[in-house]
Amino acid sequence: MRAYDVLIKKRDGVELDKSEIGLLVESYLDGELTDYQMSAFLMASFLNGLSLDETAALTEAMLSSGDVLSFEESLAPLVDKHSTGGVGDKVSLVLLPIAVECGLRVPMISGRSLGFTGGTLDKLESIPGIETSLDPEKMKEIVSEQGGCFAAQTERLVPADGKLYALRDATGTVESIPLITSSILSKKMAEGVEANVIDVKFGRGAFMEDEARAASLAEMLEEVGRRLSFKVKTILSPMDQPLGKSVGNALEVAEAVESLMGEGSDDLMALTHRLVAEMLLLAGRVETLERGVSLSKEAIDSQRALERFVSIVEAQGGRIDLEKEGFGLPRADFIASFKAGKSGLIKGIDARGIGELLREMGGGRFRAGDQIDPAPGFVFERKVGERVAVNDVICEVHASDESALSGAVSRLRDLIEIEAL
Amino acid sequence: MRAYDVLIKKRDGVELDKSEIGLLVESYLDGELTDYQMSAFLMASFLNGLSLDETAALTEAMLSSGDVLSFEESLAPLVDKHSTGGVGDKVSLVLLPIAVECGLRVPMISGRSLGFTGGTLDKLESIPGIETSLDPEKMKEIVSEQGGCFAAQTERLVPADGKLYALRDATGTVESIPLITSSILSKKMAEGVEANVIDVKFGRGAFMEDEARAASLAEMLEEVGRRLSFKVKTILSPMDQPLGKSVGNALEVAEAVESLMGEGSDDLMALTHRLVAEMLLLAGRVETLERGVSLSKEAIDSQRALERFVSIVEAQGGRIDLEKEGFGLPRADFIASFKAGKSGLIKGIDARGIGELLREMGGGRFRAGDQIDPAPGFVFERKVGERVAVNDVICEVHASDESALSGAVSRLRDLIEIEAL
Repeated sequence: MRAYDVLIKKRDGVELDKSEIGLLVESYLDGELTDYQMSAFLMASFLNGLSLDETAALTEAMLSSGDVLSFEESLAPLVDKHSTGGVGDKVSLVLLPIAVECGLRVPMISGRSLGFTGGTLDKLESIPGIETSLDPEKMKEIVSEQGGCFAAQTERLVPADGKLYALRDATGTVESIPLITSSILSKKMAEGVEANVIDVKFGRGAFMEDEARAASLAEMLEEVGRRLSFKVKTILSPMDQPLGKSVGNALEVAEAVESLMGEGSDDLMALTHRLVAEMLLLAGRVETLERGVSLSKEAIDSQRALERFVSIVEAQGGRIDLEKEGFGLPRADFIASFKAGKSGLIKGIDARGIGELLREMGGGRFRAGDQIDPAPGFVFERKVGERVAVNDVICEVHASDESALSGAVSRLRDLIEIEAL
Repeated sequence: MRAYDVLIKKRDGVELDKSEIGLLVESYLDGELTDYQMSAFLMASFLNGLSLDETAALTEAMLSSGDVLSFEESLAPLVDKHSTGGVGDKVSLVLLPIAVECGLRVPMISGRSLGFTGGTLDKLESIPGIETSLDPEKMKEIVSEQGGCFAAQTERLVPADGKLYALRDATGTVESIPLITSSILSKKMAEGVEANVIDVKFGRGAFMEDEARAASLAEMLEEVGRRLSFKVKTILSPMDQPLGKSVGNALEVAEAVESLMGEGSDDLMALTHRLVAEMLLLAGRVETLERGVSLSKEAIDSQRALERFVSIVEAQGGRIDLEKEGFGLPRADFIASFKAGKSGLIKGIDARGIGELLREMGGGRFRAGDQIDPAPGFVFERKVGERVAVNDVICEVHASDESALSGAVSRLRDLIEIEAL
């Protein structure tokens, strides 16, 4: 059996066994199976599908392609949270210190911004001095001292995923549920945690617009997790308008800090508390979601989560100055208000359009490796479902130059829909 | 519209238009679309199919990737024949001089052996001195003087086909009927002929084992030809046992010469006359197949086709010596007889197995670029349906060393099936 024969089997719709999938991934990493052969396999998998067993085997093969972190047993329960990505999704920044204060250990590995969605890592890196490239030893040290850390994906963890993702991105095979499943689970399993809560987003500001497809992904994540004895709990959450108040790297960190201070917006905090509660439930730390939610709220009310965030950031070399306006984060030089052109009800704020606009303003990437400007973004004063009068401020626009500012303000007209009453 | 978007459309089963397919092929030849992107497209085409219009567009795009030969109008009618490949298929060698003597002009471009099947070009090259790398000027000169020539595919004609074929071969996407159709038709159209008769082979000695699939290919070849105003006539022919008496490069040239002398075997000559007749019919030179067949036979009986063959070979620098035994062709040093182990009826001669055995004896290629030994092969004294007694010679085995000879003789036991009566 050669890797080529495995490709032919998948082309012909035959279910592959674990050793065949292992051979395929190994041959690819060895360079014996070429990029063009692997991309033919990916397209065949996209079109013919991969079963739960095949997806589990692929996840394991990818996991074996690199290192797997392991923490001392005394650090249990190790639990992480993952989001499939959205616009304004700064949940990880708020959730991690809360989860730590509720007794969980969270060695979180995050990604960078991709397409129109942001990335936790890019947001964090707007904090002056912060270091996110942590080697395993450093991660263990910080998790042991602080209870959690924010780290970047490294090439030593699941190297197969980086190679495969680049190929999928170039060949139109990203949006395959089994391929997404194996990519997410292999990376989360490599963190050495025992359980993971996954926030599967749907709607026009998510990669998966369709709720039914998001539900299929959620089901597959849980089913494949079960096959691999890795505890996975998914929740589905809508992503039509941006989550919380702000969109933009430094602005979202500032919002996260304000949320930890107890001033978080309802949508952001409801989702964050729910996810913390699911993590606690999954780790067996609480018996009901309600109990988890109240523990999560206590961590905010007591200011313990806020202090923990500042302390973790410091342990990673960064500084959040709670006394300063804007917490010492980079701030755009040009700020303008976007006002309602007519009175009525805000019917929609196009999350995807906002994400794409941010990217054009320098706050996202068109290509891997692009530099990100932390300052630009949007702060929404009003959200979907609220009434506005003419000239009410709907959002503040932050930009690094005047032409970007005026361009963005005029573009918002098309992205924010107001229905006259 | 970028080539990438064309790939996505095909992935999603949307029919592509001519400009989209043109863009895809051009981008690929420019290097803008990578090999791995093209192989994803090929797999999507393999699995989702290509319509007749898409296949016609792909054929045209491939044709435009290189030069197209053009001959003076006085040389009309220019007609060629193509075979999808089989074992012992030396029809082209016999047919070309006959067709020329029947008034057709045949600038034939042939391929090399591939897998278990032989290639006309490799067979021809067992003739001492022959040159098959003819540039367009030389082809025109020989066609003009001799009425036909045997030339090798060059990189200037349909360069897209060479690149795509290599990719299909490595990614399991060779056996797609639309992709086969565009590959065959683009190469034949690039010859500058007005019509082509295509011998679509099926059975265990052909690339397409299944007759129904061969019939689909034949239908698509004719339909796509019609859309491109290129006259195509297909015939389906079985390929279970080797065609004619011999298998092996020099041995098949010798058989072709003997056939031109009037000593051809029934199966080979029936197919050859039928194909010549179809060419004459397609070119409007005869009104019925029967008339075509009798013209073809006359060319043999009059020895004109034999003389034409010798003369074309000479024009290409080669020499066939009709006076010498074996016509001056290379001859193996080791020859043995394979005899019937029991009496009975010959039930099967496994064409594919024979082709593979020849390849192992040096008479075929495992990889493009492998050197071919012209001498080894088989000459069958008896074929399927004939009765044999114990120790009757079924075939002669020619090999270049003793161990290959004894190995081949013992292997034949499994490839030739005798049913006791």
